[in-house]
Formats: sequence, structure tokens, C-alpha cells
Amino acid sequence: MAKSTHQTKPCADGFCFLAGLFFGLFCFWSLTLYHYKPHFGFIPFSAKASDYGAEAPILHSDPPHETFYDDPELSYFIEKPVNNWDQKRHVWLDLHPSFTAGSRDRVLLVTGSQPSVCKNPIGDHLLLRFFKNKVDYCRLHGHDIFYNDAYLHPKMDSYWAKLPIIRAAMLAHPEAEWIWWMDSDAVFTDMEFKVPLGRYKDHNLVVHGWPNMVYEEKNKSWTGLNAGVLLIRNCQWSMDLIDVWVSMGPLSPDFERWGQILTSVFKDKLFSVSDDQSSLIYLLFTNKEKWGDKTYLEGEYNLEGYWLALVGKYDTLAESYIKMERNEGVLRRRHAEKVNDWYAAEREKYLQGHERRPFVTHFTGCQPCSGEHNPQYSADSCWNEMKRALNYADNQVLKNYGFVHPELSSSEVSVVI
Amino acid sequence: MAKSTHQTKPCADGFCFLAGLFFGLFCFWSLTLYHYKPHFGFIPFSAKASDYGAEAPILHSDPPHETFYDDPELSYFIEKPVNNWDQKRHVWLDLHPSFTAGSRDRVLLVTGSQPSVCKNPIGDHLLLRFFKNKVDYCRLHGHDIFYNDAYLHPKMDSYWAKLPIIRAAMLAHPEAEWIWWMDSDAVFTDMEFKVPLGRYKDHNLVVHGWPNMVYEEKNKSWTGLNAGVLLIRNCQWSMDLIDVWVSMGPLSPDFERWGQILTSVFKDKLFSVSDDQSSLIYLLFTNKEKWGDKTYLEGEYNLEGYWLALVGKYDTLAESYIKMERNEGVLRRRHAEKVNDWYAAEREKYLQGHERRPFVTHFTGCQPCSGEHNPQYSADSCWNEMKRALNYADNQVLKNYGFVHPELSSSEVSVVI
Repeated sequence: MAKSTHQTKPCADGFCFLAGLFFGLFCFWSLTLYHYKPHFGFIPFSAKASDYGAEAPILHSDPPHETFYDDPELSYFIEKPVNNWDQKRHVWLDLHPSFTAGSRDRVLLVTGSQPSVCKNPIGDHLLLRFFKNKVDYCRLHGHDIFYNDAYLHPKMDSYWAKLPIIRAAMLAHPEAEWIWWMDSDAVFTDMEFKVPLGRYKDHNLVVHGWPNMVYEEKNKSWTGLNAGVLLIRNCQWSMDLIDVWVSMGPLSPDFERWGQILTSVFKDKLFSVSDDQSSLIYLLFTNKEKWGDKTYLEGEYNLEGYWLALVGKYDTLAESYIKMERNEGVLRRRHAEKVNDWYAAEREKYLQGHERRPFVTHFTGCQPCSGEHNPQYSADSCWNEMKRALNYADNQVLKNYGFVHPELSSSEVSVVI
Repeated sequence: MAKSTHQTKPCADGFCFLAGLFFGLFCFWSLTLYHYKPHFGFIPFSAKASDYGAEAPILHSDPPHETFYDDPELSYFIEKPVNNWDQKRHVWLDLHPSFTAGSRDRVLLVTGSQPSVCKNPIGDHLLLRFFKNKVDYCRLHGHDIFYNDAYLHPKMDSYWAKLPIIRAAMLAHPEAEWIWWMDSDAVFTDMEFKVPLGRYKDHNLVVHGWPNMVYEEKNKSWTGLNAGVLLIRNCQWSMDLIDVWVSMGPLSPDFERWGQILTSVFKDKLFSVSDDQSSLIYLLFTNKEKWGDKTYLEGEYNLEGYWLALVGKYDTLAESYIKMERNEGVLRRRHAEKVNDWYAAEREKYLQGHERRPFVTHFTGCQPCSGEHNPQYSADSCWNEMKRALNYADNQVLKNYGFVHPELSSSEVSVVI
């Protein structure tokens, strides 16, 4: 049965009856789903689409054998644990061999924002451009991307919202080895760079961070890592981590107490509410063997980089990359967007000794949607630098379409003839 | 050399120098690009990425043989024609055999919006959700999607903006057989439906339309087809069509005259400016042999459907589809999002005799970004129905993540447990 998690509010328009009807039928559907068992004689192995609908071959059939999806105990709900996930996922993958190729490196990028209109008048425009940037990166690298703009649990909003989304994405995407969460206000500023997944083969969680600020008592800081961009392996360990992580959040009866504990542990934490980032660091150092040893704190490249340290470099870096292209003909050769990866790999040879573009610029503290930015920055510097970062990234994409923003501060473009 | 198409404006911040430097270097880069010839001894056939960068195999290498990209005469600029495109594209495809599989049905969806913030306070929020909807559809069907938010020619704005974007996308994506343009205010409201490309094998352009209103003198109307959603084949015919189409638009010295001609031809056209839709219809009937015979006017399903005729059906259709799922167990089986296509094909068997979900609901006349909607609708009806359409579509996606909007008018969700 469907468990409603939405709040009751007055039905202000004329849709009450139909909405009620819809919801009732949905509940019924959920109920029948609950009792559904695969019907071996019924589900065909291959489907022939009618002339009216799909004409392309159906590549990814779903064989009738029972999988975790047929288990009525399985719930996508954040409060209900999933057990034996590695085995369940393994069975599913065995039944769907068309996903075998590349399965160890398959990434689903997940991002999102609040369901409502932004308070900041330019907030949604910025979110739109941030999303475009992520879609561009995913198109260039062949990743799937899922944008979620619903709170999957009404109490899990703000920085806690990502945990139910990541968990639901893990269940909906057993073919993906990694779920890559990226905050809405993070921008890919090197569209060519590929995350070195091979480096993380013995780890299940990758975040930008500094071991001394996470594990050493005297340096401990709630900014010892940044939880706004993370790669999490689609495995039981991650399911368990999310369960224990959620138990420090707003769904827990101990939520308030966790706020006090975290504030006393992290001397630089200036707000007393338990947040996802401090909670994660707490978990890593209080149970390093279980959580810390499987977490890779990346510091070698900007898996996420602090915008104030990076935005000033864009012009110099653009200049340096153009010089590189001038000297090495292959890098400036026009090409189809689809072969960009090949040129990115070519560039690697010439990047030795050069400063690289920052991979991800994260506008931490700018809060584009609410507009409630950290008072140490001006609103204008936040929004202007976001535009520059987005145009800097867009130049790396638009180039393949023959255009460029000659001024990073302007959306106007020029054409290469 | 780069031809600047942006307007000069005062340099209000401190970036003038670096911007100038960047632009200068860009010009130089463009200039050197102009003279670049492939260097056969230099470009390797396979690239080995360093440990720092790409680790995945580089699938799509770009062999050193000369292609149209190496032709200094090639320009992405809308004002410069491309000749022999079929042959050029064919040579490129021959040199890139990894794109052979599925090449006849490969689709790139292209959409976009204006570069600046919307005047309508909820405009950008709606655009963000419209874009999410398209990304969802493309993820479910394996299409690439490109969102463009720059005017590729400053005079080609509003409804003319799509032509330079489509043309640039054709050149940047020789691997794509079809470019699918979709206006920002069109919503996929059947996430399962696949466009029957096989039906269009003898055509190069597909738009929703009615032959009698395009070709018959007495019924001729500027709404005889809708140019907001179109499929255009990546071929010389389409290049030629775009050239002649553009010659009726704002880049033409005859732009004003075309406005007069179109207004006199279409008695129901109430504005005197030449627009892309009337121009296309004019081309189809004045040269039916060349343009009309290769254009498929689709009317059998909602390649784009008028919102006022469709939004009232969502609740009844949701109910009917849920009934269908209740009766046919396979349709309500939970599954991975990646195998959705297979379930969509299954549903085709049960859709005979049922009314289908509208494939695309197009909010023609609502103008979500400017807010300057047709006065025959209220602003609230436009924005509220957009939200309902988006939630109706989102339910078809969220279901795979275990959630649903029980009320179409609300973003709140419930979980299926």
C-alpha cells in the first residue's frame, strides 16, 4: 500500500475529486503490485512492438525470473533497510547480460534541486544553466543523468535531500556501479577530464577531502571533506552507510542530540543543527575501520573545488590552453562532438607540467536558489562568477558547434568561420 | 578568423584586459585553425590516456584522414551554405565505423531557451522542469540531448533561433541521422512512446500538421502545421531547406517584404512579421515537389499536441492506464529504469482500443519565459496546467524510483512500499 508522506493542505482548486480518484487508484495499484509474482508462462522473452509504437529493437528485455524487484519486502523508502544488496544486484546483472560490458565503470550522475520556485529572482535561471552544464558533461562522456526535483521524504530537505535520492537511484539502476551525486551549484569546468575510477577500485565512497582534517584530533574540521560532490558505489556497504548516516539526520528521534554532539566535536562548526557533512566525517573517524577505510579522500584534482580559489584562474587557463592548441595541431583540429573523448586523451600528453583546468568549481556558500549566501561574499560576486564559470565551461562545449563566448562575463557568442 | 557578432557594450568590471587577451588569442586560434591540415605522421590512431586523466578505453578515435572538418571553407555560420553534405557525412561515417550500428535511427534532441533571465518570475523554474522532462525522456530512450541557451546569431532570436542551432548541431553530430528540435515549452507526456522513425524513411522533415491546411488554397492557415517540434534528417536537403527558410527571416534584406507576403497569403495570420512557421508552410506549398514531397505531416499521434485539448484528459488517462496495469500483471511489475523500453513495448499489446496518453503536450501561446501569454488564457491556467503536465510525465519516471505525485497539481510525492 502507498504510504503517503505528503502533508495535507486545503484543496484550493477544482481538481479534488479527480485527484482523490487518482490517489485511490494509485493505492490500489500499489496494493496489487505488492502481491505481484512473476508469471512465468505469461511474460514473453521478446516483445514485438506494434507499428504504432516502438520500431527499434528492444535491446534490454527483462526476463521473467524472479529478482529483488519481485520481493514484496523491497521498499524504495529511505527508512526501510535493504539487505543482501550485493547478491541481489549480482543476480539481476546475471539475468541482464546486455549490461555486462562496461559494468564496472558505469556511472549515473544524480543531481537536483527543491520542488518550488527559487526565492532568489535569478536562482532558477542559474539552476537551469547548472543543469545544462551537467547534461553537457554527461553527453560528452556517455553517462546517464537523473535530475530530481521532488523531496522523496518531506523531512529530508536541504542538504539531507540527497540521501533518499541516491538510495532510490541505486535501486532503480542496478546496472550502474557508481552513483555520482553532484550539488546543483557545482559546475564542471573541465569538460574533458574523466574521473579516474580505476584509482578507486578498493573504495566505495569518494569525496574531496583532507585526511588530517578528518582523522586527526587536533585538525578536525567540519570542512575536512565536502559532501556536495561524491561518488558512491552501488553496493551493500553504501546501503549500510546511508542507513547509519540517515540515523543522524532529521528522521531520527536523536536528531537534536546529534546536533549537540557534532557542534561539540567540530570546534569550527558554527551552527548547532546536525548536517550531512559533519555527520559523514563523524562516521569516518568514529568507525574508521568500517567507513573510513573504504572512503577515498581525493585531493589530487578538483573533484570539487572551492570557487573563490578557482574563478580567478579561468582567463589565464583559457590562454594557456589556447597556446597549447596553437602549438599542437591535433588539439585544435575541428571534429565531431562524439569523438571529443579521443581529443581529451590526446591533450593529456601535453598537460604534463601545465596547470589543469579545475575539474569542478563548487559555489559553496553562494546558495543560488535561496539567495541566502554567506555574508563574506557579495551577492554580485556569487552570481557573476557563476556566470563566468558556466561560460568558461560552455566554451569547451560550444567550440564543437563552431561558437565561443569571447567574454566570459557575457552570454553573447562569436562564430569561428 | 573569428567574426564577432556580439554588440559592443561598456566594460563595467575589471575583466577588460583579460577578456581582450582571451579574445585576441581566440582570434589567433581561429586563424591558425583555418590553416590546419591533418598531419598524417603526427596524429596517432590510438591514444593512451595518462593515469591522471581518462582511464576508460577511448572508443571513438578520430583517424587522421581528411574530412569536411579539415576543409577551411566549412563554416558553422548560418549564412554560409554547406554543399555536398551527404557525401561529406558519408565519408565521415565510413571513417568512424563504431557509429555504424543504429546509425539510421540515431536521434539528437535539441532544445533551448534565451540566454537571459525570464521576465516571468516562475519562467525559469518552468524551463528547468521542462528541460528535466526532456532529459528524462532521452535517458529512457537512449537519445543524446543538447540544450542551447546562446543565440548563435544575434538577429536570429525568438522563434527563428532554432535554425542556426539545428544547423550547427547537424555539423557537430554527423553520427546523428535525425535532429529533433523541441521548443522549451513542449512536454513529453507519454514517456514510453517511441517516434515511429521507420514510417519516415522516405521523408526528411516531420512536423505535426494537416495537409488540407497546408496545401489546399481554401483552407490554408498559418497553423496548418506546428514548427515547434520537428524532426529533420541530417542531409543536404535539410541544409538547403534551412538556407531558403533563413532567407525569409530576419537575416534577409527582404524580411519586411516576406512579412507582407505571408500576411496576405494567410488570412488568419494576425501579425505582420515573417515567422518561421508561416514561412515553412509557404515553402511547402509554393514548391511542393522540392519541399512538400519530402515533408511528412504527422497527424496520427501527438508529435506535438495543443495543451488546451489535452490537459483535461490526464486524470482519466492515468486511471485507465492503472486499470490496464491491474489487469495485466506484467505491466505493473517493478523493474530497473533501463529496461523500461521493454515494458513500453509490452504495453503496446494492451493499448489497442484504448486512448493513448498524448505523446507531447505543447503549451503553445503560454510563453512561460516572457509571461506574455495569449490573452485568451489566464496566466494561472497556463502555469497550473504546465505543472500538472510535468507531474503527469514525472509520475511515469518517478515510478521507477518508487515514488509518485498522488496529486498532479502538487510536487509532493508518496512512496510505494
